[in-house]
Amino acid sequence: MAPAFEDNNSETLPSSFSSGSDDGVLHKSKVTVVGSGNWGSVASKLIASNTLRLSSFHDEVRMWVFEETLPSGEKLTDVINRTNENVKYLPGIKLGKNVVADPDLENAVKDANMLVFVTPHQFMEGICKRLVGKVNGDVEAISLIKGMEVKREGPCMISTLISEQLGVSCCVLMGANIANEIAVEKFSEATVGYRDNREIAEKWVQLFSTPYFMVTAVQDVEGVELCGTLKNVVAIAAGFVDGLEMGNNTKAAIMRIGLREMRAFSKLLFSSVKDSTFFESCGVADLITTCLGGRNRKVAEAFAKNEGKRSFDDLEAEMLQGQKLQGVSTAREVYEVLSHRGWLELFPLFATVHEICVGHLPPSAIVEYSERKPRLSLLEGSTQYY
Amino acid sequence: MAPAFEDNNSETLPSSFSSGSDDGVLHKSKVTVVGSGNWGSVASKLIASNTLRLSSFHDEVRMWVFEETLPSGEKLTDVINRTNENVKYLPGIKLGKNVVADPDLENAVKDANMLVFVTPHQFMEGICKRLVGKVNGDVEAISLIKGMEVKREGPCMISTLISEQLGVSCCVLMGANIANEIAVEKFSEATVGYRDNREIAEKWVQLFSTPYFMVTAVQDVEGVELCGTLKNVVAIAAGFVDGLEMGNNTKAAIMRIGLREMRAFSKLLFSSVKDSTFFESCGVADLITTCLGGRNRKVAEAFAKNEGKRSFDDLEAEMLQGQKLQGVSTAREVYEVLSHRGWLELFPLFATVHEICVGHLPPSAIVEYSERKPRLSLLEGSTQYY
Repeated sequence: MAPAFEDNNSETLPSSFSSGSDDGVLHKSKVTVVGSGNWGSVASKLIASNTLRLSSFHDEVRMWVFEETLPSGEKLTDVINRTNENVKYLPGIKLGKNVVADPDLENAVKDANMLVFVTPHQFMEGICKRLVGKVNGDVEAISLIKGMEVKREGPCMISTLISEQLGVSCCVLMGANIANEIAVEKFSEATVGYRDNREIAEKWVQLFSTPYFMVTAVQDVEGVELCGTLKNVVAIAAGFVDGLEMGNNTKAAIMRIGLREMRAFSKLLFSSVKDSTFFESCGVADLITTCLGGRNRKVAEAFAKNEGKRSFDDLEAEMLQGQKLQGVSTAREVYEVLSHRGWLELFPLFATVHEICVGHLPPSAIVEYSERKPRLSLLEGSTQYY
Repeated sequence: MAPAFEDNNSETLPSSFSSGSDDGVLHKSKVTVVGSGNWGSVASKLIASNTLRLSSFHDEVRMWVFEETLPSGEKLTDVINRTNENVKYLPGIKLGKNVVADPDLENAVKDANMLVFVTPHQFMEGICKRLVGKVNGDVEAISLIKGMEVKREGPCMISTLISEQLGVSCCVLMGANIANEIAVEKFSEATVGYRDNREIAEKWVQLFSTPYFMVTAVQDVEGVELCGTLKNVVAIAAGFVDGLEMGNNTKAAIMRIGLREMRAFSKLLFSSVKDSTFFESCGVADLITTCLGGRNRKVAEAFAKNEGKRSFDDLEAEMLQGQKLQGVSTAREVYEVLSHRGWLELFPLFATVHEICVGHLPPSAIVEYSERKPRLSLLEGSTQYY
């Protein structure tokens, strides 16, 4: 299967990056996955199947594991290395014998040329600090981390954090990727966002692509990465529609308006963001998955069913066993940006989601648009259309 | 609520088209709706609420009704005009007292300046023939008819049929529009596609827009109209995924690939088609609604559950009381176009849907893409990206 680019210049790529090329051992890339939760384990499985198959990669895939002692008294890394399964975060799935769990972060990355970051986003700052000066000079990075903090000055892109802290270039991979479904090899797609180095993007596409996991690369890091965060705000809106039993028609309209606001928000913050990115797996497909299933949608549905009488904190505690909803905090952060920049009326859906979450508006406000139609003219300068 | 255009030059529109303008009676537009089924009745209701409110329209909305005798012995038109309800096709909903049912097609259109066509697509050729020479010279038309025949030479656009037969210009209105949900005033959106006359498009937007039905105009008749037909092929694919219980992740991927093929197919046939059209209600939103509910999806799900052992004809007869599935015939017609033009491998999803429908491939083939990845280079010439 040929890796897919949005424009087709792949015939100009050097042969060293093509599948099955005959590079010497010296040029083989060594991959380390930083993170070993549910998605990190599935990513390791995908990668490990390709490093065995493609001669341009070392077979071994090192996976950094935050060490835990299991109820049996054994260390998690020991069990992963003995059974070839992450018994805690992805039980029942063989990762590939070439996956080696390593509890020592510095050791795990020291020989790597390709670093795959896939941890909860709040851990990344600490991890980057520990890795300063510990990675190879020629290392390439990719972030699979969805969700970021959106500060008043703008979003804290994980790819930027990695680039700046480690002095390496960093791509991102996002998409409609429910880890457990990919683990059992159900068909899915993903999008790699790259900044300027197309050859590196092509190499990431090779590393992740399988017949059931189709990866496309687009030259738009910010657009791809923002999709993975902003979709959670739309999922909250979709959950409200479900809770109010407004039907599929209304839900589709809300998802569409949400996608439009994701696009407009991203383009206002980063003029390099492309419309076409939102047609990719990271855009429309991830939005659909998240608005059909997903915990943001589910808790928002319960919130609307209770007519906002129970708080999100309360429902989260009951329904999510201590996990927090990304969508609610992202909605608050996005609201602060909109408010700070005077953009509130351009983004009626984003703004309304936050106002419902904090109890200033009832859930039914999500479909009351007549007074809040975005003033298109204000967006005209920075978007081709809206 | 201001009508929405994709680019914002509405301040340049003449004031005669603005809401509540003070035109003399001579300039008032008179609207006739040709068709009175489920969607036609809802369209009449939307329009009738606006002709009362806006001084640029005559209050009366004439609705041509294919006359039927009800079990009570009364004529359908008499009952509609007495009760203000279409008791057969939209029971329980008041259409507005200014809706007048008329069983005489020629009489219904004779004074109209604005004609709204909303009948089953197979009746349009006959209706147009009857109307030749019977409509005013200054008449404007719009088609709400989803579904068209796709001949080997290309699609038979209903808007083109109307334009050519009647010598009038014709817009289209499409979107995520489940008639019964709009009838009870659930929030929804729609898209008007226009060719070149922006003022007329603006007038159609005014005529249909309500606080719960938000209409946007885009300059792309073909793109908007093709969405309404091609989405049914994707809904068949989504139904297969549901029947195979592949999960939301796979379903989202299939919907995304479907949207991409809708876009690519439309752009190959009409170079004027715009990518942005597929972000509108007629594109992504109608696709979502159709792939979540809808009879194409439902029967395809049953087909896949039976592993293709029962034919579509059989399942349709059992599940749809004599109605035929648009998606199956459209898939066949599209397949013939692809085959005729040598484009089969560019459209793996469209091609596979047809091959599954006719029993040449099993339903599971819908997610077996590795061998059939579209050759992007062939599309490169006619699309910005794919």
